[in-house]
Amino acid sequence: MSLPEPLPDADPSEQEALVVFTPSGKRGHVPRGTRVLQAARMLGVDLDSVCGGRGICSKCQIAPQFGEFPKHGLTATPDALSPRNAVEDRYDRIRGLEEGRRLGCQATIEGDIVIDVPPESQVHRQVVRKDADARAIVMDPATHLHFVEVAEPDMHEPRGDCERLAEALREQWGIAGTVVPLSVLARLQTALRKGNWSVTVALWRGDDGPARVIDVWPGFHEGRIYGLAVDVGSTTIAAHLTDLRNGTVRASAGVMNPQIRFGEDLMSRVSYAMMNPGGDREMTRAVREAIDGLADTLAQQAGVTARDIVEAVFVCNPVMHHLLLGIDPVELGQAPFALAMSGALDLEARDLGLRQINEAARIYVLPCIAGHVGADAAAVALSERPDLSDDLVLIVDVGTNAEILLGNRERVLACSSPTGPAFEGAQISAGQRAAPGAIERVAIDPVTKEPRFKVIGCDLWSDEPGFAEAIAGTGVTGICGSGIIEAVAEMRMAGIVDAAGLIGSAEQVGSPRCEAQGRTHAYLLWDGTATGGPRISVTQGDIRAIQLAKSALYAGARLLMDAMGTDRVDRVVLAGAFGAHISPKHAMVLGMIPDVPLEAVRSAGNAAGTGARIALCSVAARREVERLVRRIHKVETAIEPRFQEHFVAANAIPHASDPFPNLARIVTLPEPSFNTGGGGEGRRRRRG
Amino acid sequence: MSLPEPLPDADPSEQEALVVFTPSGKRGHVPRGTRVLQAARMLGVDLDSVCGGRGICSKCQIAPQFGEFPKHGLTATPDALSPRNAVEDRYDRIRGLEEGRRLGCQATIEGDIVIDVPPESQVHRQVVRKDADARAIVMDPATHLHFVEVAEPDMHEPRGDCERLAEALREQWGIAGTVVPLSVLARLQTALRKGNWSVTVALWRGDDGPARVIDVWPGFHEGRIYGLAVDVGSTTIAAHLTDLRNGTVRASAGVMNPQIRFGEDLMSRVSYAMMNPGGDREMTRAVREAIDGLADTLAQQAGVTARDIVEAVFVCNPVMHHLLLGIDPVELGQAPFALAMSGALDLEARDLGLRQINEAARIYVLPCIAGHVGADAAAVALSERPDLSDDLVLIVDVGTNAEILLGNRERVLACSSPTGPAFEGAQISAGQRAAPGAIERVAIDPVTKEPRFKVIGCDLWSDEPGFAEAIAGTGVTGICGSGIIEAVAEMRMAGIVDAAGLIGSAEQVGSPRCEAQGRTHAYLLWDGTATGGPRISVTQGDIRAIQLAKSALYAGARLLMDAMGTDRVDRVVLAGAFGAHISPKHAMVLGMIPDVPLEAVRSAGNAAGTGARIALCSVAARREVERLVRRIHKVETAIEPRFQEHFVAANAIPHASDPFPNLARIVTLPEPSFNTGGGGEGRRRRRG
Repeated sequence: MSLPEPLPDADPSEQEALVVFTPSGKRGHVPRGTRVLQAARMLGVDLDSVCGGRGICSKCQIAPQFGEFPKHGLTATPDALSPRNAVEDRYDRIRGLEEGRRLGCQATIEGDIVIDVPPESQVHRQVVRKDADARAIVMDPATHLHFVEVAEPDMHEPRGDCERLAEALREQWGIAGTVVPLSVLARLQTALRKGNWSVTVALWRGDDGPARVIDVWPGFHEGRIYGLAVDVGSTTIAAHLTDLRNGTVRASAGVMNPQIRFGEDLMSRVSYAMMNPGGDREMTRAVREAIDGLADTLAQQAGVTARDIVEAVFVCNPVMHHLLLGIDPVELGQAPFALAMSGALDLEARDLGLRQINEAARIYVLPCIAGHVGADAAAVALSERPDLSDDLVLIVDVGTNAEILLGNRERVLACSSPTGPAFEGAQISAGQRAAPGAIERVAIDPVTKEPRFKVIGCDLWSDEPGFAEAIAGTGVTGICGSGIIEAVAEMRMAGIVDAAGLIGSAEQVGSPRCEAQGRTHAYLLWDGTATGGPRISVTQGDIRAIQLAKSALYAGARLLMDAMGTDRVDRVVLAGAFGAHISPKHAMVLGMIPDVPLEAVRSAGNAAGTGARIALCSVAARREVERLVRRIHKVETAIEPRFQEHFVAANAIPHASDPFPNLARIVTLPEPSFNTGGGGEGRRRRRG
Repeated sequence: MSLPEPLPDADPSEQEALVVFTPSGKRGHVPRGTRVLQAARMLGVDLDSVCGGRGICSKCQIAPQFGEFPKHGLTATPDALSPRNAVEDRYDRIRGLEEGRRLGCQATIEGDIVIDVPPESQVHRQVVRKDADARAIVMDPATHLHFVEVAEPDMHEPRGDCERLAEALREQWGIAGTVVPLSVLARLQTALRKGNWSVTVALWRGDDGPARVIDVWPGFHEGRIYGLAVDVGSTTIAAHLTDLRNGTVRASAGVMNPQIRFGEDLMSRVSYAMMNPGGDREMTRAVREAIDGLADTLAQQAGVTARDIVEAVFVCNPVMHHLLLGIDPVELGQAPFALAMSGALDLEARDLGLRQINEAARIYVLPCIAGHVGADAAAVALSERPDLSDDLVLIVDVGTNAEILLGNRERVLACSSPTGPAFEGAQISAGQRAAPGAIERVAIDPVTKEPRFKVIGCDLWSDEPGFAEAIAGTGVTGICGSGIIEAVAEMRMAGIVDAAGLIGSAEQVGSPRCEAQGRTHAYLLWDGTATGGPRISVTQGDIRAIQLAKSALYAGARLLMDAMGTDRVDRVVLAGAFGAHISPKHAMVLGMIPDVPLEAVRSAGNAAGTGARIALCSVAARREVERLVRRIHKVETAIEPRFQEHFVAANAIPHASDPFPNLARIVTLPEPSFNTGGGGEGRRRRRG
């Protein structure tokens, strides 16, 4: 598509027309007869086209606006646009063209006019995130579809089909020096002939290097292309199948990380690799197979073929990162915790042995920050952008390992803290993952010490009429991460647990629900034995597990505050798969997070996953996070003596020494003391 | 290694010394105390170093020259170089330093001196080719070894080991932006720690993109790195294992192309792919496995580990090219013979599924010219450089398919001609490959019509005393390609075969060796039945097979001459695996090649293989051949009507109409005519 010649000698008012594009407001004079798509390109207006202006793809649909526009200083008469032509009529007949819409590659500008570009016709449209506080994602994916017409070979044209395709991409799309991998090359000749010398290519341009063809389809490809945003956690692998055209999540799913069988937390997996020759390779194989399975599940859920998944973005902590890449994580088991590779990676599907997604799919792995602060923390930073915050924000991404960021426009610090899997319901006697039947909310009457609760899959509280019937299908099966946090906090508020974390006896508490278990006590939440279900209690061991986890989290946050030279933060963002379900009040009663006004605590959902999605949808965001990680200063928790001090002080509920004035304003905590016996503080702590 | 500061204010004669490097003749003043390696770099002298000047690798050995050098205008006294230091003493003790040699990175220049850089200390040394006429290869390999010292990680250094390696390469070698593939990354941390933070890396820089690490060894790597130059022919796959430091061929081997079981010539393999779904993949697998086996054989022969093979260069005709790359060659079976890809390819070992050589080894595939004129013809052009010839040279690479080039400085033309495998001994009744026992030379007495011959593995002619004893071990087993050519030419000169290619009867010829076989005759070369061996005859069918092959070859050459507008060439180069064994006189009697003075016929040996070796040893040569192929104009034989005309006219021996004045000057051919019966000219001809 060549631009029309300028018309220097003619009277502009005769030969040219004023066109104003909305919503961009871009305006200018173009020769009458100029196609709208051409005019958009001349004026730098974001108007999509996959077919390159051939009236096939309909991605360039525009909405002409007629009438008086004093604001723009023009009046648009109905003849300001050429009448609908045969190509548009045919398109309307076959695929339907909405009332008031025209094809930008067909309609020509014949007089002054205002042209609206609807969101779906914009390449760089904004993707609205559910989270109202969050910035919008502007679509800027690495992979686009391009329709091209390729010159036919003849006996006197020495170049191969591939070279003629590259030439067509240069001529028709201005994209020079395309690389075609062998896997695509093997299909190219068939596609060209089947498409009668036109094909649609998926073209990746994710770095400064040459464009890469990921796939090729005969003729105009009606289908879409997709990307996977994958968050490889120690416990869970979560992925979103995303439409690369508009950023829509078409399907989401999670699976347990099968590496769990080699060790529950990160350090036990590093140990497994150290103790078992080839153990790292076993774990690499396991996680890659799980990702393959997840890709397959998502494609089926969304009803798309896995071959149309042409990109994947990965975020993960450094141990998961190394195991995913096939690197023995042994160096992460000891100071100075040297990463094999800290930078972002552009890879191919085969580098990770992925077999379900497109053979030539491109992989982007976010950069790690340093040591145990990995690509997951980088993704959280990309999603939450603490570096753009005016006030001091603490972001905690709660998982098996907690990623903690503290910062503002001046400075951003980060650390990783080994909370262990207790917050995810593991290491809890009745713990289970968040699934129907799991207790997710708990309230305890401070007078009667009687509990009520809600289970996932049922809207009723356990003391409301109809609860028994409502849960008949699932039963009450256990307690999930957010449930155990609420339970412990409620027990603390009801005086069932003291500040040291000890559960009182039935006599001390004044409730038969406090049952003796050896030398300690457990609080009975639910007795389901009458209907063949379990007895669900919160045991002294459960309290200890939660104390260890929350102390690690708080100590990490405090270490960052020390490094920042402050003892208070302005606001707290709770991220992580289950961050969304934690009640800020209960989190603060427990002393998981520093004391701030309750309204200054916000849940950001799965920020790491969101960061992965942003990077999937935007090349600019990839460059942004690469710059951002270089600005983030890592604070090492593992060898910092103050971490241990903070950890010990944070063991009390909510804290042994730090005041919680904001919390005190809304909650009055009773202060019983249940005779500190042999608590069992000596359990070995591990990272992750 | 930083360059010393200039000394602007000092008297040069006091502070500086004049150094002259030979053989380059480069000269200049350097500050006294400058190390020889530094001086070489300052003056742009080609002096190697793998360890970067640390006294480890000894690649920078130089030979200082003392005495009077009027030619250079200096006198070098023995103290013009610093005395041998401790590093050199240690090196001499452990590994030995030749008399008169010094380490350039240790010795400092203290006075005017002449320093000789021996060939083995030059990076860009010349490799002497056996063929006296040929240009020398200047070493310029894509992959070099570099020794680097890498900064240790610490808790406050966020970058990974890989990033610190890249930084060390930038600082110590001036190489920025290195890429480390995952396979190397997985070994990097171990190598760095085992080497106490120094490693040797094999670094590939074969294109404009970033340097790529192919392998990493702890500390200083004593070993060498190798490349494979592979010529994938229709019948034979030949490979040379080459030392990438000096171009020495360490081992050569060939195997049958296992694709032969799918079809003897190119077109029958294309047919196999067309008729059998997945047939192309079977053939791809077969040839890749054969290359793997060959790599293993060569590594064993040379006593090196296959992991040290870090590069491979491939040349092949277009059908072999496509099958090697995993591309269905079906389009090469029909006009317009469109190649899937004509350009040169930079690939990785895994792209070709090669498992024996280094996992990260780089592959270079020479460009194809067009249609059926492939990378093998490009390699011949690179080896023989017709584009640099003042006179008009015809180059024929004789194999199952003949590649023919015609040109001079003005213009180069090329075509491919389907000679079939007769020249390689296939389709010949007693044909066999060139191996001990095969008849390779033949002479027939024009009076007695009695033959004498030589077999491979024996220096005696068959009529010399002791022949029977000498061949007792092998026997006379068959006739190879060069043998059948000589036999037919000798039969023609002795009047046993007429110009039309008919063998006369015993009566017509006057020899009982002309035996009737049905309606035709065969000439008995050897009767081995008395000793349990075979009777070896040249049959009428053999003559026909040779006529078809030589007619195709000659017709191709003539077609190029037509396109060039000439009916004579100045010289002929015979290339191809067996080009070396063809007697120019017999080739001309047969009419394989146009008539030129005998002394204007030269054998170039395996020019395609030589071209592959050149590209393996030189990145500049790769760029050269990429430019060269764009200058070569392909002439298509398959659909050119004149090819058929030329083919029919060339059927006569030597030719039906073209005069052979140069031949007539040395040979007088009898002109019998053996009553042309039913010759059987109707055999279907196929390409390759």
